[in-house]
Amino acid sequence: MSDGRHLILDLYDCDREILNDYESLKTLLQTALQMADATILRIIGEQFEPQGVTLLALLAESHASIHTWPEIGYCAIDLYTCGNTTQTHKAAEFLKHKLKSKQVEQKELIRSVTPLN
Amino acid sequence: MSDGRHLILDLYDCDREILNDYESLKTLLQTALQMADATILRIIGEQFEPQGVTLLALLAESHASIHTWPEIGYCAIDLYTCGNTTQTHKAAEFLKHKLKSKQVEQKELIRSVTPLN
Repeated sequence: MSDGRHLILDLYDCDREILNDYESLKTLLQTALQMADATILRIIGEQFEPQGVTLLALLAESHASIHTWPEIGYCAIDLYTCGNTTQTHKAAEFLKHKLKSKQVEQKELIRSVTPLN
Repeated sequence: MSDGRHLILDLYDCDREILNDYESLKTLLQTALQMADATILRIIGEQFEPQGVTLLALLAESHASIHTWPEIGYCAIDLYTCGNTTQTHKAAEFLKHKLKSKQVEQKELIRSVTPLN
């Protein structure tokens, strides 16, 4: 059994229109996860008022999420997968490009399935 | 607008029976999130075969997730909230206790809604 890999992205200065477009974001997330060879079991989401979108994808390999704050051009993305079959960095690059982020904070956590000590 | 707080827990040596009990886990997650004063908009989940459960909670304040591997007593939990109204540490303590974890790796990420530099 392999450790989990959890990509955590904070995207700044994104396209604000896309960040408030529920259907476009859902399509982007689906495409990104397909590019990553992840298996989507279900996607749910919420369009907030006056703005903002949340999307959660339940994956066979764990989960992915997007939360957006269009009013400040900010977006928080998690891509968390277990196993060795997914390419989440591909999904991350795609999303950064499509959301037109001009500044990115990105980290990857390795989540060990066994205690570290 | 306040930064997001993302609690990341890896729980080892948990009660393996609870880790494979979908309904119990869902009730525990709901209770934990209520204790944290989080607003649950929806919860979805999956019972995997031959074992393992995933639960995703869509919150007004962002999201929470649980992924379990009963066969090794391991469980990965995320509690990610924005705003200053939630008490996610309360939820974390409750879940660690109820899942009877004997070893915990815990970190908290502050996810800045504005660029750090």
